[in-house]
Amino acid sequence: MTHPLFEKHRAKLDAALNAIHTRGYWAAYNEMPSPKTYGETAADDGKKAFDAHLGQKFDLSQPGTTAWLGGENSPFGVDLNVSYPVSDIQALIDAGQAAMTGWQAVGVEGRTGLCIEMLDRLNAQSFEIAHAVMMTTGQGWMMAFQAGSPHAQDRGLEAVTYAYREQKFVPPEATWEKPQGKNPPLLMKKHFEIVGRGVAVVVGCGTFPTWNTYPGLFAALATGNAVIVKPHENAILPAAITVRTIRAVLAEHSIDPNLVTMCIPDQRETTQALVTHPAVKSVDFTGGNVFGQWLINHCRQAQVYAELAGVNHIVIDSTDSYKGMLRNLAFTLSLYSGQMCTTSQALMVPAGGIDTEDGHKTYDEVCADLARALEACLAKPEVACAVLGAVQSPATLERITLANGGTLGKVLLASKKLDNPEFPKAQVHTPVLLACDATNEAAYMEERFGPITFVVRCADTTSAIALSERIVSTHGALTAGIYSTRAEVIEAMTAATWRSKVALSINLTGGVFVNQSSAFSDYHGTGGNPAANASYADSAFVANRFRVVQRRFHV
Amino acid sequence: MTHPLFEKHRAKLDAALNAIHTRGYWAAYNEMPSPKTYGETAADDGKKAFDAHLGQKFDLSQPGTTAWLGGENSPFGVDLNVSYPVSDIQALIDAGQAAMTGWQAVGVEGRTGLCIEMLDRLNAQSFEIAHAVMMTTGQGWMMAFQAGSPHAQDRGLEAVTYAYREQKFVPPEATWEKPQGKNPPLLMKKHFEIVGRGVAVVVGCGTFPTWNTYPGLFAALATGNAVIVKPHENAILPAAITVRTIRAVLAEHSIDPNLVTMCIPDQRETTQALVTHPAVKSVDFTGGNVFGQWLINHCRQAQVYAELAGVNHIVIDSTDSYKGMLRNLAFTLSLYSGQMCTTSQALMVPAGGIDTEDGHKTYDEVCADLARALEACLAKPEVACAVLGAVQSPATLERITLANGGTLGKVLLASKKLDNPEFPKAQVHTPVLLACDATNEAAYMEERFGPITFVVRCADTTSAIALSERIVSTHGALTAGIYSTRAEVIEAMTAATWRSKVALSINLTGGVFVNQSSAFSDYHGTGGNPAANASYADSAFVANRFRVVQRRFHV
Repeated sequence: MTHPLFEKHRAKLDAALNAIHTRGYWAAYNEMPSPKTYGETAADDGKKAFDAHLGQKFDLSQPGTTAWLGGENSPFGVDLNVSYPVSDIQALIDAGQAAMTGWQAVGVEGRTGLCIEMLDRLNAQSFEIAHAVMMTTGQGWMMAFQAGSPHAQDRGLEAVTYAYREQKFVPPEATWEKPQGKNPPLLMKKHFEIVGRGVAVVVGCGTFPTWNTYPGLFAALATGNAVIVKPHENAILPAAITVRTIRAVLAEHSIDPNLVTMCIPDQRETTQALVTHPAVKSVDFTGGNVFGQWLINHCRQAQVYAELAGVNHIVIDSTDSYKGMLRNLAFTLSLYSGQMCTTSQALMVPAGGIDTEDGHKTYDEVCADLARALEACLAKPEVACAVLGAVQSPATLERITLANGGTLGKVLLASKKLDNPEFPKAQVHTPVLLACDATNEAAYMEERFGPITFVVRCADTTSAIALSERIVSTHGALTAGIYSTRAEVIEAMTAATWRSKVALSINLTGGVFVNQSSAFSDYHGTGGNPAANASYADSAFVANRFRVVQRRFHV
Repeated sequence: MTHPLFEKHRAKLDAALNAIHTRGYWAAYNEMPSPKTYGETAADDGKKAFDAHLGQKFDLSQPGTTAWLGGENSPFGVDLNVSYPVSDIQALIDAGQAAMTGWQAVGVEGRTGLCIEMLDRLNAQSFEIAHAVMMTTGQGWMMAFQAGSPHAQDRGLEAVTYAYREQKFVPPEATWEKPQGKNPPLLMKKHFEIVGRGVAVVVGCGTFPTWNTYPGLFAALATGNAVIVKPHENAILPAAITVRTIRAVLAEHSIDPNLVTMCIPDQRETTQALVTHPAVKSVDFTGGNVFGQWLINHCRQAQVYAELAGVNHIVIDSTDSYKGMLRNLAFTLSLYSGQMCTTSQALMVPAGGIDTEDGHKTYDEVCADLARALEACLAKPEVACAVLGAVQSPATLERITLANGGTLGKVLLASKKLDNPEFPKAQVHTPVLLACDATNEAAYMEERFGPITFVVRCADTTSAIALSERIVSTHGALTAGIYSTRAEVIEAMTAATWRSKVALSINLTGGVFVNQSSAFSDYHGTGGNPAANASYADSAFVANRFRVVQRRFHV
């Protein structure tokens, strides 16, 4: 009597359930854009599907459409000219609420099976979505494919899996038989119905429009809620393709597709009215602190899951692989021009320098060597373009210009504009590396999103660790790192991260980078410091998105 | 290598884990005050232990004590004269934070074992705590024993069990091995540390100072947090005994007892400063809407778990056990003088009356028969005193006087003051039963806490069910009931409760009452309507009280 789609996807779900419990390496969706996995024609088909959207109205057949709006600017300078439906928010909310009854009735297994079917269908569109992500965000192709498609799908599946585990734990019914001494027992039958909280709103960001959207979207959906996706104004296309596919899967399985819709607001007030609407019971948000804090302060009717800004950082105490460390850091800082929410902004180096297998290095030597490592990392133009991608927003360009000017710190390496032969209008900019003293907190202790990194001169390792703890506690961070050959230093940093609650990467000198977060293994954000009040994904991310309504009667 | 107390209590935990997954009848602690369970001298010993507190300073040896404060008024008119330490809140917070490190280090098993040890120790004090609950709240002896001791302990254990399940699901470590095609795999070791969010504050209520406090207290404690208990100003003694016992168990097992302290504020501003303190990360609250909403609006730094006021109600459509229904309702309304947060306030009866096995009854007949059933229920003075207990607060006495005056509705049965020979100064008052029309919403559609019930005349059953849904959605409710012999009516009411999210009791005519909520089986509150934003207990009640902090490194 379980749902056919649940049976179809049961093996994948079982593997995912094992993965969230063991948190070793596992992935449902292949991160390599290989014809063997995705089909010989997948790359071409995906490109054609993407091209077919350009210059068109992207119809979603959703209710309340009053106008069409577009205006995405590609960081690669490509003309997109896609326009999207502007829909009355009350119409979207009413339609979502109406659709929830059928979604509740299909039950935990039905919802889980349908959600995995959606993810599989999105996986089949991985090339199309990757082009949409690349062209709206400025990510290089490989990142756009991996983070935009399979990694995002894995994060979505991770949320579905936690949601299944929590819902499945609630028994559908129970017999309650209470002994009464010598009298007959009290006997009741109880039913426990899982119901969604209400309409969920998922607010996307401009840099990772699927990776940061799928966890909240699928967590809310799997737990029985209607979802309205409100994409970033400059990264609508990946969300629109996603919503269209989800609606198609719903309709094909006789669920009202208005369960999932997209909101393109024609003014800022519309978004504010949407997220504070009494029917909206959860808001997932990734983005800046100003709107994030506004949401936390104003959406009293909803649970807000917010990933905000932070000041990621690394303490460099010592290393037995100096060149490996420098290479690792250079790639970390270059990847997508530092536009990952996990990229390090501050590298804390003792004023007295650091011990390495290659002898002692002074603070100035570390600064100079890191600058050289960055230049080496980006020496080949085609590699540089692939790694850097393009800068997503004019505000980031302004921050780069400011940093290049030297007012924030001594310029160790200035950002340069590069040419991308394939996309002549692309905004390609190398990272800027600055040196400053730990006392210059105004410079490095606020998020300066983009390819801007400070080598912060600290009195010593102990004070650097104390600074790390203070930064995380007061400004937040999604990632922290430590390089040290001394066990007691690693222990002290570990203890500091337990108090401040930030994920720690230790001595990364090879093919793993501090800004990478692997679905099913790395918890993205702890939810315990100001950079994020939730984690991808854990039980807390799903358990409060549904409620159990019981009824009981004597038998 | 697990903790000895974990091994000691493993069988109980395993049974509790089974209970939260099956939600049939189960209890860890015997609700009967039987010498066989509690020991031949337990009743005497408990009474003596209670008596020994009277007129004394209740020392907790906690830091920052600056003064002593008491002033509890017993609804039974007994002189208590216990005084309690007034402690500086910053001192309590600092001490709690300092104690968290050792509490984290003892691990999930250690915390779980210690929490169950605390509950067992509280169970051994069941008579002492029952007297404290009875004398501060006005509950009759049997309720004070059951709800104040074993049932509260079971609710605490339920929270500990959910907390264990969620924490245990997080693996302490993982090996992450990512294939790299023909190259060697990327290999990392990851550690996952469970850390509490910070200091938890648990704000108790005046009517159920243990039953409504233990879930939040033990949920927060089991998940690694320090806890400051802020009891209701008139029900301090049960909390003080609890805190002292917990501190003793901690100290005996080499954990800093300042992990758990009690806050007796000398002014209202102190409580407000405590709950909005940046170090306070969760607030559990049971009480009125005014302060509850204040907490939700002001404690932005904390997760607030609030159980507030509601308008509980029952729709009466028809019955095949008229006398059983009336007896059941009469006891429901009389028990603890309606001072349970689950007691029904509105009984909705169709204007055209109801069908019964005894023929059709008009609305007026139902009103009169219910009044008679109440009189019969309380006809024997000794039974009446045992069932009614005493009225806890002067505000409730004022509400009774107001209701007796007839301005809220036609008085079907006036409240009478009864004498309690054992406690001559006890405030014993029978319920007042009023009749009013459904249109008179101002009368019945706000919580009138205490023994005040409206028989609301509705146009018909359909409109009564619609009214129920609207009441729950707008004013909240912890309980709803329906009496009907018609399947389609029960289905319609069930569907309404799914939308409004309230627990439903159907056709209770025997020994189970709508206001009773059984630990490990009944979810107390759905957390989905304005009467409560959380449930006792489920995964959502515990999952967001701790965070996972990971570290990773190559091996």
